[in-house]
Amino acid sequence: MRPPNESAGVCTQRPNEFGNSESLTVDRYDPQPLLDGNRRALAKAITLVESKLDRHRQQSQDILEQLLPHSGNSIRIGITGVPGVGKSTFIERFGLYLIEQGKRVAVLAVDPSSPIAGGSILGDKTRMEELSRREEAFIRPSPSEGALGGVAQKTRETMLLCEAAGYDVILVETVGVGQSEYQVAGMVDFFMVLMLPGGGDELQGIKKGIVELADALVINKADGDSAVLAKKARQHYTNAMNLLRHTSFWTPRVMTCSALEGQNIDAVWGMIVDYYFQALEEDAFHSKRARQNLEWMRQLVDEMLHLKLSRNPRVRELLPRLEREVAQGRATAYAAARQIMEAF
Amino acid sequence: MRPPNESAGVCTQRPNEFGNSESLTVDRYDPQPLLDGNRRALAKAITLVESKLDRHRQQSQDILEQLLPHSGNSIRIGITGVPGVGKSTFIERFGLYLIEQGKRVAVLAVDPSSPIAGGSILGDKTRMEELSRREEAFIRPSPSEGALGGVAQKTRETMLLCEAAGYDVILVETVGVGQSEYQVAGMVDFFMVLMLPGGGDELQGIKKGIVELADALVINKADGDSAVLAKKARQHYTNAMNLLRHTSFWTPRVMTCSALEGQNIDAVWGMIVDYYFQALEEDAFHSKRARQNLEWMRQLVDEMLHLKLSRNPRVRELLPRLEREVAQGRATAYAAARQIMEAF
Repeated sequence: MRPPNESAGVCTQRPNEFGNSESLTVDRYDPQPLLDGNRRALAKAITLVESKLDRHRQQSQDILEQLLPHSGNSIRIGITGVPGVGKSTFIERFGLYLIEQGKRVAVLAVDPSSPIAGGSILGDKTRMEELSRREEAFIRPSPSEGALGGVAQKTRETMLLCEAAGYDVILVETVGVGQSEYQVAGMVDFFMVLMLPGGGDELQGIKKGIVELADALVINKADGDSAVLAKKARQHYTNAMNLLRHTSFWTPRVMTCSALEGQNIDAVWGMIVDYYFQALEEDAFHSKRARQNLEWMRQLVDEMLHLKLSRNPRVRELLPRLEREVAQGRATAYAAARQIMEAF
Repeated sequence: MRPPNESAGVCTQRPNEFGNSESLTVDRYDPQPLLDGNRRALAKAITLVESKLDRHRQQSQDILEQLLPHSGNSIRIGITGVPGVGKSTFIERFGLYLIEQGKRVAVLAVDPSSPIAGGSILGDKTRMEELSRREEAFIRPSPSEGALGGVAQKTRETMLLCEAAGYDVILVETVGVGQSEYQVAGMVDFFMVLMLPGGGDELQGIKKGIVELADALVINKADGDSAVLAKKARQHYTNAMNLLRHTSFWTPRVMTCSALEGQNIDAVWGMIVDYYFQALEEDAFHSKRARQNLEWMRQLVDEMLHLKLSRNPRVRELLPRLEREVAQGRATAYAAARQIMEAF
């Protein structure tokens, strides 16, 4: 499952302690412990990737470059859903099921309010307790802040590190604030939305953007009194999804499960495996990743350009007035844009 | 309905003929004929706006600046729909109805394959014949090419010219190729999607992005044998739209009409008037336009930045290799983006 370790034996020195990162120079970084699946080495590398210091940024890029040939050998699954949908219970059950199937599972989060970031929403510190005790699982809460590319950028890079450390399945979790759903959908192979059961008028609406992103809607809590409601909801959402034209080889599926009772968890995995093989067959798997990588690069170039623009003192001076004039319809957008570019 | 003409009497000279645009200097442009609703003056100004010559670009910006205080006094309506949905018949009927209500109507298109651009799809040159003969209507096909901001940029500016010339209702039409639906939705007050009737399995899917854009779905051809199907389709789409969460004050409506028989055309206008007054009340009308203007400016700055970047010889040399490496996962997006910025 893990790629052959091409750089074995090349680097022999251990990385320095993190507190002494001044001396963590590139030629001395030894990727071996991380490639061997050493959790401490992985955690350290992630901390470096998450650091906002420019110095660390350069180091982490060097490390990423060394590990890049060993990354990519996983299936990346994005999971979103509103608070209360049972996301952490689902991820725990799903993760334990995958471990039973012989997988190693990494769980990452892209926003600080996500359950795995300490259960900040319901204050439940014991979430995913069983999963977190397993040697085959690696759980990493969201970084509290991101520089360029935001927190999502860090999560993308953390994902590569986890892959190099031999994790087969990467679960990327978000509660879906702001742009985070789009960001997660843009970094995974399969994007799944957990929904609450409900029927008739109580049926919650699908958040508009979701229908564009979801490869599957999974209605959780299909247990007890809610089992019937969940079935109704499934029919409802299936109808809604069918009203949308799907251009890809894959038509998004709607299913029910109960994370609490462990019902249908295997079917969710079965669906993803199904997707995986269909995508491979359609040559869509690697081309999707290539597209995502390019898109990611373009986003970063965009951000860097805008950063450069917004730090330009003449642009800073001009912008408030121009924005006011354009918003009020007193200047055309073109004239204002030209002025900004001339100042830049 | 027209704004008071503040610049009346200030400029007295007539603009030169277009072929002699060298001498069409700014201080000699007389906005009066256009402000008086002179069709020839309007057509000339549009031709100047549509020109891709840098020289004309500067002139048209100066003209736009003079006319800007007189623009904005219209309701801007975007109309899209697949070929065959009866878009030109609808626009003709709708336009004639609006003229009956005392309005002056401008019809613009953002893509060359749209019906008003000469009926290129079905080769029907006689479309909107009745509307085009009316003095109160101004029909302008799509420019064949656009520079910065694409054809949509030109259409935005043409819209401003039409408003300055006293048109109360601007219909912006697109067949929805590529990004054009998004562009049109981003420049109008109300965006409406024409649909075909159909029921059960025959029901066409809603193009994914549409659900995010539409303020209304209007099922056309609700006549003859299709009347029943149209009713069913309406119920179907209403259900689908209700499954989406709507964050704005306005919940998108689904209605039926028959452009051929002139049925419910008044109801479509009634709905738009309803929207207009609700939007005014909610303070959403002008804030939406301000947002659109700012977004338009940002898009242009983006494009200008990218143009500058893509014309940089060192970036041009680097880019193909970097894109290949990033797509294949051999370089991180961050490392590649940094290299591009350093070359720039």
